[in-house]
Amino acid sequence: MAAEQELFIKMVIDAWEKYVKRTDHIFNSLSDEDILKEIAPGKNRAVYLLGHLTAINDELCPLLGLGEAAYPQLRPLFLTSPDKPGTALPSIAELRQFWVASNSRLMEGFNRMEPYEWFERHSAVSEEAFAKEPHRNKLNVLISRTNHVSYHEGQLILIHPSSN
Amino acid sequence: MAAEQELFIKMVIDAWEKYVKRTDHIFNSLSDEDILKEIAPGKNRAVYLLGHLTAINDELCPLLGLGEAAYPQLRPLFLTSPDKPGTALPSIAELRQFWVASNSRLMEGFNRMEPYEWFERHSAVSEEAFAKEPHRNKLNVLISRTNHVSYHEGQLILIHPSSN
Repeated sequence: MAAEQELFIKMVIDAWEKYVKRTDHIFNSLSDEDILKEIAPGKNRAVYLLGHLTAINDELCPLLGLGEAAYPQLRPLFLTSPDKPGTALPSIAELRQFWVASNSRLMEGFNRMEPYEWFERHSAVSEEAFAKEPHRNKLNVLISRTNHVSYHEGQLILIHPSSN
Repeated sequence: MAAEQELFIKMVIDAWEKYVKRTDHIFNSLSDEDILKEIAPGKNRAVYLLGHLTAINDELCPLLGLGEAAYPQLRPLFLTSPDKPGTALPSIAELRQFWVASNSRLMEGFNRMEPYEWFERHSAVSEEAFAKEPHRNKLNVLISRTNHVSYHEGQLILIHPSSN
């Protein structure tokens, strides 16, 4: 059982790492000027997605039991509000730094977790619900968040200098 | 071990189903006129993504041991070539039908598979490579293809009538 679990955890964490790296690569290839561009006319700017993905990363910490959110100030700006170009945001340099730090923090947290912990309920599901639906565990949250990263990667690629 | 395996498999198939349904919902909400629109200026048209996702679904069948590809004619149009508005494509009605049929075929195939089959190597990895990298199994392919669906869902939502 332990070997099976470890294999499965590796598959899920590897996928997370792969899609985060691809997205990080796009952010790194965008200049501070590019990052203020909309991904399509009238849609979110890349800077919003940078803050949004960082805020989602940050919320993953308490959800997975890895500690408190480090950037609660991002929540009202990038999770509960849509992109509004007039809003005062943290600087792009700061947002880039938070993004990188939030990814490192998550990977360090994942590496510290024991295999069995991944199969525990995440903090947003009750014990009663979890007893009936044991797939609502921490690993499942990571599968879902990986798809969320991919979703926005597909948008960010649209303003990547060499995309088609 | 069997219960653990079944839980993993359920998590991965549920995620696949969820993101395919979301994407299907967008295609259904797009009129035949909408579907000819580009997701962003100068980028792929939605019709290309419809054919592309169907062609990827179709290739999943042999990869997972579920039978031959049913629409090999889609490959040169939607996998090995970029979107070129001058190219003659199957009709939108046909493409919509292939998309729906390819999703049903996959779900039926997944339901027929025995749990252990998901942990076997997929047909594009050699026995030697698989001995060293047992995570390169069929379930891993599905994790990756689910992220692929999400990537394009993130693009299609940009031309969804009620997107932001």
